[in-house]
Amino acid sequence: MRTHPTHTLELLSASLPAGSIITDPAAMDAYRWDRARDSNAGIPLAVARVTSTAEAQTVVRIAGAAGVPIVPRGAGSGLSGGSTAVAGGIVLSLDRMRDITIDPRTRTATAQPGALNAEVKAAAASHGLWYPPDPSSFEFCSIGGNVATNAGGLCCVKYGVTTDYVLGLTVVLADGRAVQLGGPRLKDVAGLSLTKLFVGSEGTLGIITEVTLRLIPAQAPSVTLVAFFPALPSATNAVPSITAAMRPSMLEFMDHMTINAVEDETRMGLDRDAAAMLVVQCDEPGAHAAEQIAHAAKICVASGATEQFSTTDPDDGEAFVTARRMAIPAVERRGTLLLEDVGVPLPRLGDLVTGIAEISERARVPIAVVAHAGDGNTHPLLVVDPNDPAQRERADLAFGEVMDLATRLGGTITGEHGVGRLKQPWLAGYLGDDVMELNARVKAALDPDNLFNPGAVYG
Amino acid sequence: MRTHPTHTLELLSASLPAGSIITDPAAMDAYRWDRARDSNAGIPLAVARVTSTAEAQTVVRIAGAAGVPIVPRGAGSGLSGGSTAVAGGIVLSLDRMRDITIDPRTRTATAQPGALNAEVKAAAASHGLWYPPDPSSFEFCSIGGNVATNAGGLCCVKYGVTTDYVLGLTVVLADGRAVQLGGPRLKDVAGLSLTKLFVGSEGTLGIITEVTLRLIPAQAPSVTLVAFFPALPSATNAVPSITAAMRPSMLEFMDHMTINAVEDETRMGLDRDAAAMLVVQCDEPGAHAAEQIAHAAKICVASGATEQFSTTDPDDGEAFVTARRMAIPAVERRGTLLLEDVGVPLPRLGDLVTGIAEISERARVPIAVVAHAGDGNTHPLLVVDPNDPAQRERADLAFGEVMDLATRLGGTITGEHGVGRLKQPWLAGYLGDDVMELNARVKAALDPDNLFNPGAVYG
Repeated sequence: MRTHPTHTLELLSASLPAGSIITDPAAMDAYRWDRARDSNAGIPLAVARVTSTAEAQTVVRIAGAAGVPIVPRGAGSGLSGGSTAVAGGIVLSLDRMRDITIDPRTRTATAQPGALNAEVKAAAASHGLWYPPDPSSFEFCSIGGNVATNAGGLCCVKYGVTTDYVLGLTVVLADGRAVQLGGPRLKDVAGLSLTKLFVGSEGTLGIITEVTLRLIPAQAPSVTLVAFFPALPSATNAVPSITAAMRPSMLEFMDHMTINAVEDETRMGLDRDAAAMLVVQCDEPGAHAAEQIAHAAKICVASGATEQFSTTDPDDGEAFVTARRMAIPAVERRGTLLLEDVGVPLPRLGDLVTGIAEISERARVPIAVVAHAGDGNTHPLLVVDPNDPAQRERADLAFGEVMDLATRLGGTITGEHGVGRLKQPWLAGYLGDDVMELNARVKAALDPDNLFNPGAVYG
Repeated sequence: MRTHPTHTLELLSASLPAGSIITDPAAMDAYRWDRARDSNAGIPLAVARVTSTAEAQTVVRIAGAAGVPIVPRGAGSGLSGGSTAVAGGIVLSLDRMRDITIDPRTRTATAQPGALNAEVKAAAASHGLWYPPDPSSFEFCSIGGNVATNAGGLCCVKYGVTTDYVLGLTVVLADGRAVQLGGPRLKDVAGLSLTKLFVGSEGTLGIITEVTLRLIPAQAPSVTLVAFFPALPSATNAVPSITAAMRPSMLEFMDHMTINAVEDETRMGLDRDAAAMLVVQCDEPGAHAAEQIAHAAKICVASGATEQFSTTDPDDGEAFVTARRMAIPAVERRGTLLLEDVGVPLPRLGDLVTGIAEISERARVPIAVVAHAGDGNTHPLLVVDPNDPAQRERADLAFGEVMDLATRLGGTITGEHGVGRLKQPWLAGYLGDDVMELNARVKAALDPDNLFNPGAVYG
């Protein structure tokens, strides 16, 4: 640090409106962790809660000149420690920047980074439009965080991920300049694809202060299928058969442990004995959705489903989607979670799920698996007894084994949550040295002093 | 140049299989231009026609060591001079790399860069799958070129552009290393979005030697609507009304001059008096497509269409799509073309088309306009009498005026063709100095010696 911290704090306070800077330790505590609850979280020098691009630039310039690192933060819902506070650094919180404007003529939304995903959806819906990407945290995650992680969700199997909807960004760079990338244009190839480079950059290349998003017409009502299976392969075999026959708008998987954890919460009548459950939705117009769901039901039965039923009632269907969305909070009641996000090519899903069960047994760590089965992205949830440090050690090892398994199966260590700090130790092994070096080179070009989120992604 | 060219040629010939290197001037001529027919095309030192990633690496290493620039080339169908040969450089042609493999289980295609877009489509179709991006040149453009330009097409209004389908790339970097980015995984956020960065990089960051593409199920049969309008605003007003009401799978525009040029070729009965024509397609399943087309027809009539008809017959519908695809070759018969690719937000389409007509009149240069109206991307075609150099001068000025007009309307100077060399002089004015500098910085990080395609994009 090139400048005395007190001087930096004085400069920040003098340069921003009153109330922008938090230094009280108890008040800062709310900004030190994301949902990864990284035990290595440092105590920041300050939390800066900005309300504009200009204020973000001010923070970046002062911090940059003082050599004080910045950790950007949306709603702190991240699962990989991407917003873990760095000791002596500044947490730059975008949570006060919540404006959303919908332009129905261009079918775009312009959102500030602190706006919640659910707020963007609601604003779009009020115009008969839809912003599809729907991470399970959509009610409490920020659109800025979504862009930083290239967030996915349950609809991705048909509707794609966040990057497919980002048309433009305003970004504050490490030198304090603010740039406009892209804009409300569906097609634009002038220059490098820099908008796409910043999406998924996990706060390591710049501070996103505005996002222009593509919207599509409101989703048609869905027909929902729920099927219970007596064995894991029975369920995982049905998945590629379904995706080969149709384009479901949702295709989700829950294993035995997850079903029971959710049933503990909801008492909705899920089959506690089932080895696995699939929730399938189709939103094709007219009678087509029901036809496709009927076909999917046949596939499930042919694959060994012991029970299946479908519904055209939107509320009944939504109840099962909600059950799926509750998976992580429900399993979280059973212990401390280590959350994985591995994804594999669809034909290897069965091997992944089976392999995870073997890891769980060997390590003597329960692992609940919930998955966006239709796109091969899974969330194995390692459940650790908080009073059993030996189990925690075994779980930490198993955490790596799950990623190694996915990589061996041609998959990725992270499909949608991001590398953050938690998975950083496995990144080079997954990408290989050359691609890791390429990542580091682009980072160095854009943030030569490693001002933004040091410790995340590149290590 | 640090090494004598003869030595470089000897090294190339010694390091590659016989027949890889072309130096005969007449034979090299076929590799000096793309469809922009850039009058500044240089005479290359050699054309290297490689058959593998390893051979491409060999060329890059030898050229890099000798300081000889490389211009990558797919099928040479580009419209912006992106593959224009550099004097004394090497044209690295990927045209011999044509392999395509379809994996129906992962629903991906792995294609070498010289494979034609149409070949990729045909290979996918043989498995009941579809690779949607369809530039009008799809029968003679390469998939590598498509990736390099982030090519669009007629289907983009509903199905997106090339980058939305690229899951992975093998790229040879400026230092000769080959890297694998991404892969057959629908979701992967491990590290920076480098795959997306290389898409649309116009051969300036690396040599693409393999592409992994996402495929979707075969397109449902389309219902086609054709409507003729008595005035430009009548047609352009209908466009946003149609896109607000439905998601057409195609929404194309042709103006009076284009209609007549195409009718000269096809004698198919297009209305020669119409000011403009729209071709609309819907591919929703079942009866839904016909319903939507009927709705679109009503919108056209309400907007002033003098004639409209629709067809569910795929061949009849295809005849009109073919007519649209012939627009550029048909207009090309009338003179030398300067081809634009400006795009605007949809609500400004009318102003763009009207403004172009005014530019045409002032400059006394005919400008035919054909457009992917549904996404706001247009192709104004400036037609110049090859025997009238004064008109050519006026047309060169008008070329810039069209881009300035689009920029003033909040649009882009290039929606899908790329900057190449032709539009390079307008890039900084469009992006602004800061974003231009950011582009240059990323380029410098990846290709510090400007080995790849010097003169394209950044100037």
